[in-house]
Amino acid sequence: LQVVHHNQQVTTTLGTVGILGGTGAQGRGLAFRLAKAGYDVILGSRDQERARQAAEGLGDRVTGSTLRGAVEGAAIVIVAVPWDAHAQTLTDLREELEGRIVVDCVNPLAFIDRAPVALKVDEGSACQQAAVLLPGSRVVGAFHHVAAPLLLDESVTELNTDVMVVGDDVPACEEVVQMIDSIPGLRGVRCGTLADAGQVEALTVNLIRINRRLKVHAGIRITGL
Amino acid sequence: LQVVHHNQQVTTTLGTVGILGGTGAQGRGLAFRLAKAGYDVILGSRDQERARQAAEGLGDRVTGSTLRGAVEGAAIVIVAVPWDAHAQTLTDLREELEGRIVVDCVNPLAFIDRAPVALKVDEGSACQQAAVLLPGSRVVGAFHHVAAPLLLDESVTELNTDVMVVGDDVPACEEVVQMIDSIPGLRGVRCGTLADAGQVEALTVNLIRINRRLKVHAGIRITGL
Repeated sequence: LQVVHHNQQVTTTLGTVGILGGTGAQGRGLAFRLAKAGYDVILGSRDQERARQAAEGLGDRVTGSTLRGAVEGAAIVIVAVPWDAHAQTLTDLREELEGRIVVDCVNPLAFIDRAPVALKVDEGSACQQAAVLLPGSRVVGAFHHVAAPLLLDESVTELNTDVMVVGDDVPACEEVVQMIDSIPGLRGVRCGTLADAGQVEALTVNLIRINRRLKVHAGIRITGL
Repeated sequence: LQVVHHNQQVTTTLGTVGILGGTGAQGRGLAFRLAKAGYDVILGSRDQERARQAAEGLGDRVTGSTLRGAVEGAAIVIVAVPWDAHAQTLTDLREELEGRIVVDCVNPLAFIDRAPVALKVDEGSACQQAAVLLPGSRVVGAFHHVAAPLLLDESVTELNTDVMVVGDDVPACEEVVQMIDSIPGLRGVRCGTLADAGQVEALTVNLIRINRRLKVHAGIRITGL
């Protein structure tokens, strides 16, 4: 792939990524970073007008569309909807998502008395639920621990965290690792199958605990690699 | 506390730590590092003679004893038994462990077709099981991700990993953090309550996945602190 720079603008594309739940902070943050890295990004929302507004300020490569619109043009689709909307959103888009790489970054969490709590998921994890609901898709878990405020902070030029990548489809995982590695400061690390996703998702609770206690945006690095 | 050095020997002690399951690689590895840091360590085993043998080569500060012997002299007791022996060992020592800080580092894992699998625990986690079985003890979870081969490798002078510490008793957690921080290269990071322990324990599966794939001893650092 040849990337040509004109006036600091990347004019070719690394590909198109759709983001379901693209109006949330996580979705917008990932869009911003992926666009900077050279991807075209379509934010998908049930409300297309909100998606268009959410795309503003994230650069020329980021556009807003419907949920279906975000899937149709994209080879890789990131699921960044709230946990409450996870099952329904995927069920509604089952056919459209067929054959695509679906990157699930949803954390099944609730806040009880203001404390973060990892929720039990019948299928074992959000990722496994996605795999059950999308038998024709290539489900990969990633981006669970990346702090949205850092993603959206333009002054943070280099993120400082690894991204744990889980999935049963190794080539799909490798494509996602490549996408992650295109973002400065991120490094994708494959660390298991979909059956190993639950603890990766739930660990977000522990990071929130650290964030609140120390007023930081904690991330994770794997050492010894 | 005044630490006096004579001929490179630390002659005062930072305290005495007991290790249940002290003949295993994790127990011996922690003993080696804690003794180097200035703690007296008692390895406890059902077989006292095996405990004495396990203590050999770990330095003058490490001795072997029975399980009861490892508890009685220690303010802090590390539980490093195999998961299969977790409930019974703690049940048998309930009275002796009363009032003490019990550091649970047990990972409820199994290997199915040679693949590591996180086991479901009725109480939610090994740490929570410990808290149920030891209502009079101060249970803290820690050391889940520290690779035993690195702990035991004398050529590794500086370990390179954080230790996630969970617990409901904050002063007990802080004492454990202090103990962790005494070991070069380790840093204790409080990251939640006992209810948040399950995913910390289960994450060991993901690290084993990385270790096998890349032939490394992976650890974890928390970034952004």
